[in-house]
Amino acid sequence: MSTTNSADKNPDLSKERGGFCCQIHGDDLQEFFKPFAAFVDEMKLQITQDGFKGRVVDPANVAMVDKSLSNQGLFEHYSSTGGTLGINLNKMTSIIGMAKKSDLIELELDQETRKLEIYFDGLSYTLALIDPNSIRQEPDIPDLDLSGRIVVDAEHLIRGIKASRMVSDHILLGIKPGENGSPIVYAVGEGDTDDAELELTENDYIEADPVEETHESLYSIDYLEDVVKAIPKNARLTLDLGSDYPLMIHYNQKDEKGVAEGPTTHMIAPRISSD
Amino acid sequence: MSTTNSADKNPDLSKERGGFCCQIHGDDLQEFFKPFAAFVDEMKLQITQDGFKGRVVDPANVAMVDKSLSNQGLFEHYSSTGGTLGINLNKMTSIIGMAKKSDLIELELDQETRKLEIYFDGLSYTLALIDPNSIRQEPDIPDLDLSGRIVVDAEHLIRGIKASRMVSDHILLGIKPGENGSPIVYAVGEGDTDDAELELTENDYIEADPVEETHESLYSIDYLEDVVKAIPKNARLTLDLGSDYPLMIHYNQKDEKGVAEGPTTHMIAPRISSD
Amino acid sequence: MSTTNSADKNPDLSKERGGFCCQIHGDDLQEFFKPFAAFVDEMKLQITQDGFKGRVVDPANVAMVDKSLSNQGLFEHYSSTGGTLGINLNKMTSIIGMAKKSDLIELELDQETRKLEIYFDGLSYTLALIDPNSIRQEPDIPDLDLSGRIVVDAEHLIRGIKASRMVSDHILLGIKPGENGSPIVYAVGEGDTDDAELELTENDYIEADPVEETHESLYSIDYLEDVVKAIPKNARLTLDLGSDYPLMIHYNQKDEKGVAEGPTTHMIAPRISSD
Repeated sequence: MSTTNSADKNPDLSKERGGFCCQIHGDDLQEFFKPFAAFVDEMKLQITQDGFKGRVVDPANVAMVDKSLSNQGLFEHYSSTGGTLGINLNKMTSIIGMAKKSDLIELELDQETRKLEIYFDGLSYTLALIDPNSIRQEPDIPDLDLSGRIVVDAEHLIRGIKASRMVSDHILLGIKPGENGSPIVYAVGEGDTDDAELELTENDYIEADPVEETHESLYSIDYLEDVVKAIPKNARLTLDLGSDYPLMIHYNQKDEKGVAEGPTTHMIAPRISSD
Repeated sequence: MSTTNSADKNPDLSKERGGFCCQIHGDDLQEFFKPFAAFVDEMKLQITQDGFKGRVVDPANVAMVDKSLSNQGLFEHYSSTGGTLGINLNKMTSIIGMAKKSDLIELELDQETRKLEIYFDGLSYTLALIDPNSIRQEPDIPDLDLSGRIVVDAEHLIRGIKASRMVSDHILLGIKPGENGSPIVYAVGEGDTDDAELELTENDYIEADPVEETHESLYSIDYLEDVVKAIPKNARLTLDLGSDYPLMIHYNQKDEKGVAEGPTTHMIAPRISSD
Repeated sequence: MSTTNSADKNPDLSKERGGFCCQIHGDDLQEFFKPFAAFVDEMKLQITQDGFKGRVVDPANVAMVDKSLSNQGLFEHYSSTGGTLGINLNKMTSIIGMAKKSDLIELELDQETRKLEIYFDGLSYTLALIDPNSIRQEPDIPDLDLSGRIVVDAEHLIRGIKASRMVSDHILLGIKPGENGSPIVYAVGEGDTDDAELELTENDYIEADPVEETHESLYSIDYLEDVVKAIPKNARLTLDLGSDYPLMIHYNQKDEKGVAEGPTTHMIAPRISSD
């Protein structure tokens, strides 16, 4: 039994050895991993020269998350010669969950042991990495022709989901032409006896593409609930909708000046209605 | 699968057809249904020309709730030609629980479908009503000759119940002559080895009828706990007590100016002591 | 069924009869019992002429608590001719948990019934005492020659425990010589694949005895978690450490002016490492 001395860690050395070292604040790193952790337990993290990249799909192939984080802006330090790390997300989110918002977290790859050293505020954690080849292959993002784009504050999506949940396990999200030229965006839950509906007009959403006909698709509320749990409450979302098509939800992780640094995309497969 | 447009709702029309329509703030409607929901899952709501009326008794016939809400004061709009609605209280409290305190909730009866439309802040919910004839008959309030009347802040009753709960499932509530002419109000829990007692004197209660002898009755703590959960924490309660008699608890739902608009009465049957 | 009148309680009388009576604020009495309640359900409380004394050991003989409270300072009133009370800690902490911080709690021993009367804010509770002879004998504190003394804020111990818990059920606490003459204090959790370590230098701890060699011992995290739950979050702890020796944790319950009135000692037996 022995103790390791964390005083001799040296980011420059790791760079020379073709390794990886970065520094980032606690809240920013927590926010980066949260959308992935909502759907999978393990992920492949690409540590490119430009920053972090990850893409996962849940075991049932319904929900996909794609997110990257530029080495500009949110990182205090970033050096990588590239590579892929297999991350246990339960462990990662527990460890970095101990950091305060303002703690500077340092991640450093130990090339010989293939372990990731995590340092902040006197704490050091040695995280064994998973063989990336044992983790499920990243999915391709299909090339979709989605018909309606809506920009809306996350709180509206959350309310629509909550109301629909009272009557059903599914939610119909749609956009239709409005009487004054501005489209109407709606979320509908249809139950056996009761119905719940949220309607958003131009007073509610930020913007919405004009449409000539109704486009709507049915989604599982379970998956949408997991998505919105991972989204910052005050996020502004861009939704891409089609008819019986996957739903794309885009938003950005921002630095202190509000500059978008980490584009995040959630994709949810539709449930094809049988009527 | 289709969506309904809530834009064509029209309170005036429903009035002409002999229907029902009202508008009331979120917190006021939530407070109205709370005492009923503490004891039953379904209720008959009387929508008279003067306002709301309801009376329920729990399945074991121990606890009764009687409450009305005048069409003055708390309602922003109220029109009804009278009738009875069968309400599923779990659904009703879940839906209106999504409203903010200040949201104006509109209730409108669809006469043809016999469903209740609930609107607030862009949300519309269609609530299927229950056949009132399938809901348990409202009980009569017995004509009781109760001996002692006490006016007291709810917090005192809550403390007495909590202390008695530590030692027993029952609580003895009583009033007895005090030495200086002012009666003493007490709540006692008697356990196998331990006892808990709360005594209130004229410094603690607001007022109490003078009594010449002790009046006390034993009640189930389970039922009293359900009553106090439904009562606003800062309510001022009027308690009517007798000897081995039901307990009557009266308080009022108030409008913004503090004018009492909704008298509420809880009645709890005593447990007749066998010693 | 009858009610007892708590108006005739008289501390002076109890004193004359060779009894016990004291008055102390709610938060101070709650804090006194908390460390004992973390490890045992029943305790012998010594009510000496100088104040309270108690010492307990948990059923597995791993954790000991020793605590006293002087009759100076924290007590508003204290009179005792000495004796031992057998206390049910679950009941005691529930009852006094109903008191507000500032409530003055009065404890008075009824010599005839051998019950403890507990009064505060209109409430009276009669607590049946346990025969002290039926409660486990108080342990002796071993005379230990501990090598390293560290003074540190409780928050550091809490973080070290939390980090180690992620990887193991045990934590290695140690002190070793540092490069600049100031010792380094460390907490290490060693898991099958991952390790967690917290290192404290002279910038982190308040003070630490210089050491010439490493002293460290392994402890059960379960027991340490129970200790830190009972310790005020802002406490300053004195830790005595040795090599494969029990850990001693000392801190003080303080009065409003910060004067230390109730010395508390926790002792945790080490788990002897087999490697």
